[in-house]
Amino acid sequence: MEKEKLYVIKIGGNIIDDEQKLSSFLKDFAQIFGASSHPFRSRGLLVHGGGKLATKMAAQLGIEQQMVDGRRITDAETLKIVTMVYAGLINKNIVAQLQSNGCNALGLSGADGNTIKSHKRGSNSALGGGIDYGFVGDVDAVNTGLLQSLLAQQIAVVLAPITHDGNGLLLNTNADTIAQETAKALSNVYDVELIYSFEKSGVLLDVNDEASVVATLTPTYYQELKEKQLIFAGMIPKLDNAFAAINSGVSKVIIGKAEELQQLINGNSGTAIVNA
Amino acid sequence: MEKEKLYVIKIGGNIIDDEQKLSSFLKDFAQIFGASSHPFRSRGLLVHGGGKLATKMAAQLGIEQQMVDGRRITDAETLKIVTMVYAGLINKNIVAQLQSNGCNALGLSGADGNTIKSHKRGSNSALGGGIDYGFVGDVDAVNTGLLQSLLAQQIAVVLAPITHDGNGLLLNTNADTIAQETAKALSNVYDVELIYSFEKSGVLLDVNDEASVVATLTPTYYQELKEKQLIFAGMIPKLDNAFAAINSGVSKVIIGKAEELQQLINGNSGTAIVNA
Repeated sequence: MEKEKLYVIKIGGNIIDDEQKLSSFLKDFAQIFGASSHPFRSRGLLVHGGGKLATKMAAQLGIEQQMVDGRRITDAETLKIVTMVYAGLINKNIVAQLQSNGCNALGLSGADGNTIKSHKRGSNSALGGGIDYGFVGDVDAVNTGLLQSLLAQQIAVVLAPITHDGNGLLLNTNADTIAQETAKALSNVYDVELIYSFEKSGVLLDVNDEASVVATLTPTYYQELKEKQLIFAGMIPKLDNAFAAINSGVSKVIIGKAEELQQLINGNSGTAIVNA
Repeated sequence: MEKEKLYVIKIGGNIIDDEQKLSSFLKDFAQIFGASSHPFRSRGLLVHGGGKLATKMAAQLGIEQQMVDGRRITDAETLKIVTMVYAGLINKNIVAQLQSNGCNALGLSGADGNTIKSHKRGSNSALGGGIDYGFVGDVDAVNTGLLQSLLAQQIAVVLAPITHDGNGLLLNTNADTIAQETAKALSNVYDVELIYSFEKSGVLLDVNDEASVVATLTPTYYQELKEKQLIFAGMIPKLDNAFAAINSGVSKVIIGKAEELQQLINGNSGTAIVNA
């Protein structure tokens, strides 16, 4: 039997921070995945990052943010803030907006229904690299049963980048990783396309030229572009994640502009990451 | 066919504010409603209030809390805070703690899955009484389908006191009311007992004497005690709610000490509100 289609869509922090862009993205999302697109609608799962709101909140509360190599350390106070801002303020506002646009949505952290279990990143682990990132979680398992049951009820799931370790600890977790791990796990059940939507038009050959989008990126071409240093450094972890995803069952990964969600889904915009 | 039993349990703010008491309450809850009590376990739904955390957070952020007649006005900034604190920090910490105690839990606001729809309280409404309470919601409808589906999956639902109006607005909503409305709506499907657990042993004849608990409160006895002014003023809205609930399908309402959850369920503690 052919698998049903599922779109796992990550929206980046720059969209979250821009009220207008977020609202227009959510309208598009609701049009594609909401009740009005019935009976032809596909199932959608949205993963959101945090944006600058948590940093702003920390500053307002006078909590100093520790940074190491440009990356934030999640101390106990910062964990409280990201839990509030990501799983509370941002997640619930996204859900309420989707509801108002006719899309029945439901927000979850990884603790809810034990959806995403993680462990605290050790400073001696590969991802730790000698640095203690604090209350940061690396994903161990995505439990697909609950997600399937919600998706089957035509509910769009909205995941916040907060997971738990099963011992009562909430952990700050990279939203790109959550999108990738969720897409991989659900590809056992669905034909999954993973879309990373952000402020750029896709993978650009020239970071200052939005017209220089690479339409299709194969592993060979990716190697070639990396060797020529034509890939923007910040994109490399995202692309490594994307290739890991298509090697683990995800049928397609698309990277592109949040403003062009329908075109990304139709294959008329963005960069498609493919296996060969 | 006999209806399955469901316990809707409200925990009050004083328990939320006390880390030890909350943790011990959640252990009890998990023992009664978690996997280890299988196959004899009942289904449980937990509704939590907010406690003093939101007020503390507002003070830290320098947001002045407007009070009218001892009741907080929820302005736009306060709405953000309660959304963060109730639906984020408190709700997700409760869920993570229940998970760590072997109880699969899932936290929801009223916006999630359109579970609880409300409208902004008008200052000219009965509950408004001439006062503009700001972003406060009065419950219109509880959608039981999703709740049933989660409870059938042996998931303990944890409701935060935030609802939505269907037009994108989140609203601060009284947790006692949420517990009551949810219990009433679910009594179509389940045999529902509603438990208000807080810091007191039940309805007390002498507010300073924990031994003066009224074991059973009928409408007639309630009238009598009110006329003699033997009911603490703060308890009257709670008790009016309780009587409204048993008149709308809820089979039993129990009011008592959070520390004695198992005894409240067994009928060995607290005040039982009954119809006659």
